[in-house]
Amino acid sequence: MSTNGYHVAVLGATGAVGQQMLKTLEERNFPVSKLTLLSSERSAGKKVLFRGEEHIVQAASPEKFEGVQIALFSAGGSISKIFAPEAVKHGAIVVDNTSAFRMAQDVPLVVPEVNEEDLKLHKGIIANPNCSTIQMVAALEPLRKAHGLNKVIVSTYQAVSGSGAAAIEELKTQSEAILSGKDFTPEILPVKGDKKHFQIAFNAIPQIDKFEDNGFTFEEMKMMNETKKIMHMPELEIAATCVRIPVETGHSESVYIELDSDHVEVTEIRELLKEAPGVTLQDDPSAQLYPMPADCVGKNDVFVGRIRKDPDRANGFHLWIVSDNLLKGAAWNSVQIAESLVQLKLV
Amino acid sequence: MSTNGYHVAVLGATGAVGQQMLKTLEERNFPVSKLTLLSSERSAGKKVLFRGEEHIVQAASPEKFEGVQIALFSAGGSISKIFAPEAVKHGAIVVDNTSAFRMAQDVPLVVPEVNEEDLKLHKGIIANPNCSTIQMVAALEPLRKAHGLNKVIVSTYQAVSGSGAAAIEELKTQSEAILSGKDFTPEILPVKGDKKHFQIAFNAIPQIDKFEDNGFTFEEMKMMNETKKIMHMPELEIAATCVRIPVETGHSESVYIELDSDHVEVTEIRELLKEAPGVTLQDDPSAQLYPMPADCVGKNDVFVGRIRKDPDRANGFHLWIVSDNLLKGAAWNSVQIAESLVQLKLV
Repeated sequence: MSTNGYHVAVLGATGAVGQQMLKTLEERNFPVSKLTLLSSERSAGKKVLFRGEEHIVQAASPEKFEGVQIALFSAGGSISKIFAPEAVKHGAIVVDNTSAFRMAQDVPLVVPEVNEEDLKLHKGIIANPNCSTIQMVAALEPLRKAHGLNKVIVSTYQAVSGSGAAAIEELKTQSEAILSGKDFTPEILPVKGDKKHFQIAFNAIPQIDKFEDNGFTFEEMKMMNETKKIMHMPELEIAATCVRIPVETGHSESVYIELDSDHVEVTEIRELLKEAPGVTLQDDPSAQLYPMPADCVGKNDVFVGRIRKDPDRANGFHLWIVSDNLLKGAAWNSVQIAESLVQLKLV
Repeated sequence: MSTNGYHVAVLGATGAVGQQMLKTLEERNFPVSKLTLLSSERSAGKKVLFRGEEHIVQAASPEKFEGVQIALFSAGGSISKIFAPEAVKHGAIVVDNTSAFRMAQDVPLVVPEVNEEDLKLHKGIIANPNCSTIQMVAALEPLRKAHGLNKVIVSTYQAVSGSGAAAIEELKTQSEAILSGKDFTPEILPVKGDKKHFQIAFNAIPQIDKFEDNGFTFEEMKMMNETKKIMHMPELEIAATCVRIPVETGHSESVYIELDSDHVEVTEIRELLKEAPGVTLQDDPSAQLYPMPADCVGKNDVFVGRIRKDPDRANGFHLWIVSDNLLKGAAWNSVQIAESLVQLKLV
């Protein structure tokens, strides 16, 4: 470790996640000796505050990574594909929050509470998993470790901020239009650039990202494939249904799991999650205590509640998992990876 | 059948479901020779239009059921418990939309597409199932019939209108308050009369109805127990997670099922549902065609899409089931039961 910190770059510094990354670096007091803020040509020249100092955002180009030690990327997959190899060539370690490299064999896909050790195998690029995957594996890993895990069926209730600032704006303006009886035209959701767009206000859209040939969406496939990779369980049975609902921030998940053991009770699941790193247990039906997206916003943890034993299978359990998709789902997990790199002396 | 129709009573005539019942009786041109509209003392005296004629709503009392042949009840479980036996004593057949008698052994619990024949066993009271149960069993029955069914895992995305007119109002006023940065105090949801109330606008609440000792809510237990009764499958493995989302009308369900047969493909599931009574197939990923609550409002059918074969189990399938909770989930299923009673010459 350099004695006074690291030269950190943030690519996508003006976006929703980029802004949260800067906020999180501040809050965690991450040792930043120099900060380089990068963006598209369009956002270049904008001014951003970090620790009270003004930084000017520059248009990304390969030479901007000169001297950079840690580069946090969150500017879209196509941008990552261009600039990640360039940053690595210049000696930086890239923590990439897009799907560009997640399934590449030589790229660790990391949730520090689950597979921090995989960081040691990095070859310059480390991938930050999909938001809905991160919160699920953080909650399931303590259960897998204790009792084995063999099946996961998950249905998501995902916030619009996962689709960017324009989707947040669309939810607000559509909600206002509907409440005041005005007309509106959906333009962003479910997927910017897809053929059709649908109302999200006071609606639920069972499509996140584009469809694959097997009828699952890319978001669903991400949850399925990334979970297997992060947990080192290629044999895990897992299926996802991903749904967008009219929530600004905070993803929720209804998760059914089957453990290897038939001899686990709800009380033990609760104990395991109470002790688990990065997890907050909120599970007391008698006090109507359970996680909700409106309560998780701005918090780094993954919240778990509604834990029930399946009425039919002794190894089956149902859980409700909620987290801030911009923090643990994106910015916080990326910064956490950077912290792990420092702690493991990998940077 | 009386040549010119039946004396029909609607109890709860001024409520959200009662109003839909009257609208549905009109639309279906149900043979009503005389109409008696009943309510609580509070709503008595209100005037309601039916087929262009004004009817005055009367306070319910036992003698009001004199001469009534078919009584549609939707005024809450405690009201049903008082008046259903009275109506039966006066010779009426009661179609009850509350949970008061659903699990009673001598009360048929009927979704006409699934178990119309059970009506023949009635002893005066027929129960209309829970809204989220009805739409699910209507979609699953054709699959069970063709290939057997042994497991169901369902996560719901339920509209606030299932909780009544006050909950609709709460969603609207809260949404307005949040959009304009004003304060608000949740007063109705998740459960009127429970200890705590939570924000529903731009949020998701994983509680519908009160909690049972086993950690499931009463709504979840309703889905589980009623499905077994309607489908005559006490041995069915089924578990539900019920969640309220900020949608006014239209329940959605993410459903995982396991069939008895290992040799079914998605194309056949689609064919079965295309032919199924009361079901509309909306399943074409390439055209972004899938059901959504905003599209189902005002329609009697159950809409099914997002049909996928489970990646791990040959007998496993995932479906997305949407329906208007006030129509097929309540008013239309009740009127449909009345139509079946006529057709089967049971009234």
